[in-house]
Amino acid sequence: MKVLIVGGNAAGMSAASQIKRQKPGWQVTVLEKGPYISYASCGIPYYIGGQVESAEDLIALSPEAAVKKRGIDLRLQSEVTAIRPGDGEVTVRSGDGETSEPYDYLVLCTGALAQTRGINLEPGERIFTIKDLSDGVAAMGLLDRYQPRKCAVVGGGYIAVEMLEAFRMRGLETHLVHRRPELAKTFEPEVSGAILGEMEGQGIVLNLEHGVEKIAEKDGQVEVHTSRGILAYDLVLIATGVVPNTALAAEAGIQLGVKGSIKVNEFLETSLPRIYAAGDCTETTHLVTGKPVYVPLALKANKEGSMAGANVCGGRRRFPGVLGSALTKFYDLGVGRTGLGLGEAEQAGFDAVKYGITANSKAEYYPGRGDLQILVVAERGTGRVLGAQMMGPVDAVKRIDLYAAIIQRQMTLQEVFDLDLAYAPPFGGVYDPVLLSARVGLKKI
Amino acid sequence: MKVLIVGGNAAGMSAASQIKRQKPGWQVTVLEKGPYISYASCGIPYYIGGQVESAEDLIALSPEAAVKKRGIDLRLQSEVTAIRPGDGEVTVRSGDGETSEPYDYLVLCTGALAQTRGINLEPGERIFTIKDLSDGVAAMGLLDRYQPRKCAVVGGGYIAVEMLEAFRMRGLETHLVHRRPELAKTFEPEVSGAILGEMEGQGIVLNLEHGVEKIAEKDGQVEVHTSRGILAYDLVLIATGVVPNTALAAEAGIQLGVKGSIKVNEFLETSLPRIYAAGDCTETTHLVTGKPVYVPLALKANKEGSMAGANVCGGRRRFPGVLGSALTKFYDLGVGRTGLGLGEAEQAGFDAVKYGITANSKAEYYPGRGDLQILVVAERGTGRVLGAQMMGPVDAVKRIDLYAAIIQRQMTLQEVFDLDLAYAPPFGGVYDPVLLSARVGLKKI
Repeated sequence: MKVLIVGGNAAGMSAASQIKRQKPGWQVTVLEKGPYISYASCGIPYYIGGQVESAEDLIALSPEAAVKKRGIDLRLQSEVTAIRPGDGEVTVRSGDGETSEPYDYLVLCTGALAQTRGINLEPGERIFTIKDLSDGVAAMGLLDRYQPRKCAVVGGGYIAVEMLEAFRMRGLETHLVHRRPELAKTFEPEVSGAILGEMEGQGIVLNLEHGVEKIAEKDGQVEVHTSRGILAYDLVLIATGVVPNTALAAEAGIQLGVKGSIKVNEFLETSLPRIYAAGDCTETTHLVTGKPVYVPLALKANKEGSMAGANVCGGRRRFPGVLGSALTKFYDLGVGRTGLGLGEAEQAGFDAVKYGITANSKAEYYPGRGDLQILVVAERGTGRVLGAQMMGPVDAVKRIDLYAAIIQRQMTLQEVFDLDLAYAPPFGGVYDPVLLSARVGLKKI
Repeated sequence: MKVLIVGGNAAGMSAASQIKRQKPGWQVTVLEKGPYISYASCGIPYYIGGQVESAEDLIALSPEAAVKKRGIDLRLQSEVTAIRPGDGEVTVRSGDGETSEPYDYLVLCTGALAQTRGINLEPGERIFTIKDLSDGVAAMGLLDRYQPRKCAVVGGGYIAVEMLEAFRMRGLETHLVHRRPELAKTFEPEVSGAILGEMEGQGIVLNLEHGVEKIAEKDGQVEVHTSRGILAYDLVLIATGVVPNTALAAEAGIQLGVKGSIKVNEFLETSLPRIYAAGDCTETTHLVTGKPVYVPLALKANKEGSMAGANVCGGRRRFPGVLGSALTKFYDLGVGRTGLGLGEAEQAGFDAVKYGITANSKAEYYPGRGDLQILVVAERGTGRVLGAQMMGPVDAVKRIDLYAAIIQRQMTLQEVFDLDLAYAPPFGGVYDPVLLSARVGLKKI
């Protein structure tokens, strides 16, 4: 059997490795258009910020190891330009020109692309996006070459938050330019407010409600034309989100779903036989609403890749869906979210209530405690938990995982309160903040 | 209505506060034999160790606030010496001599006592136990008065571990004297080994397999007579566990259960009408085995107290039971446990398997990462998780709560692996250690 995998990052390499583990005799070819495989995209901001020394540190599996230890036929700088499902072939463009590659099974792991939708963008070296490791390395090159003093991040999501930290940690005058009065909608307004407050505390200049119309280089600077005037910087990062990279799939007649992502069933099968898809290019199911969603996050990509690989080998492993669980930090402020925000819950038809609590992250008297705030979205009446967000000390917000389990297992606030959580003063109060959030919630529903 | 509450710490004050909240007009009298109420017993080692400045910091509610803000009739230094259920009265011994107090409802929150079972103990000032805040304050007095250079802790449980840290942080030559080759059975052998290793690294002298027969003062020192000879110290703390303080209940004819703790149903009712019990003096149910257990931990005491109070007021709140979830730390090593150990699982009749994993506590490349080890006990075949223990960086082991939820909700390893946990490099790997532990476990069951 011959399996072709398009894309060599998290999903693609997980799929390839899984298949070679289960079927060592099969030929597994990974076609990666860029020079890198299997890297930690989420680590790029920490490389730019200086906490991670070298881009190499972000590479989980070297091309040599993929080939020699795992027996994967790895082809870098090889872009798949067409799929011919009828013939069971793809067209590959590489240094050798265009060739055809046949497949028995095809796994599409084409990921996502940085998007700059709605911005009239004139190409320029000082204007950049960050999606893959090449972008990260290129950004570092720009910082070295131009020695900027003043830079801006356009956008309000995770990458924007993390890159603002990275630039600030390098000592640059750093500006946020964002069209909304708050950060991205993934953050509830309270969380957004806390992050923006921390940004101000760190000297970030906040240009909120600045709709960006045009970005162009002029006289050795970058001009950002906004609804409130022109701002000028030495470098500008556009971090306004990503879109699934699915033109190839669409042209092959594969059915697309939410936001143009590839529609797959829980076994990661696309609408065409012998073609699977996994990772940032696929649609998935929201575990609370049951509705299709596009949530390009790393854990999903890794799990889907591995499961698609297992299913190519004849397995029937199911990817159940996501809650959109995510974490980030800005300096000493950690932030986590899982499940539905209030708006999402209402949109999904729930009679939802949102409330917040503030609790000590360690025992009140124990050194190093901080305030942990928890927002909970619950269904009125039943008390079923639909979503939660947290903000507080970096060492306190991994608790969001407890809420992920709570939501995924459809627990009620009473069931949360009944949990026998662990206590000692260096780790929390007798009633963990999660228990307190449940106790308070029982009076709100 | 008149409610008497015997004992003014976690359970007692929780009950009293709950009743006054629901029934402001009722007379609620707390009879506390000592001088303190409502303090954080678990914080005492950190007071001795110097992380917490004053014993006052450990007091959650001052007597003045209990009386003035909550309207509780608080009587310190008032010991209940007898219950006469037939008459609905108790006998109280205080500075005023012996008096009788009638009750409509009685809530027993008599807590636990430090036990020194099996040790021939000659009374002496330099030999002490630590159970309540008076003990903590007294211990601090001993340290000031005797300025010891060399001290020992006899025992191998949580308090022993924490007090060894406390003495060592004060710069004392510190010895562990313990009868077993490992710490207490609540720690799986691997966890015990890690803690003992960390203790050696911090210069603690480990006298393991030293059964203690006799402890007595001699010539201004304390001699600890062990199965391996006599050891001499300036001060000796005995931390060999606690027993429920239930002589009063027993004499009144109230039914006792495991280890002499007071038998209560899920509504915290004892075997006698109008008498409730809550906290470290009661038996409860283990959430995995369904069997009665004696697990004196702070969260249970607080919840039971509050629920007993609510039920006195006519409520029907249920305390479901415990998993024995607990945390502690020794210097930079955090340790957590929940559910059953392998031995307990086998004893309960489960066909159990135990396995371990080691994972990065943060992304591999992110600064400050450490090794987090997770031990999982699961049922063979079904993959139901029965217990888990963790050891690693202090900021990583609060994850044990996730396992508490997993076990309490009777999840299988497959269901654990399917959880959509949150990821970002400063908080863990893409696959959180808990997900990795589930993935590995799926191959072991």
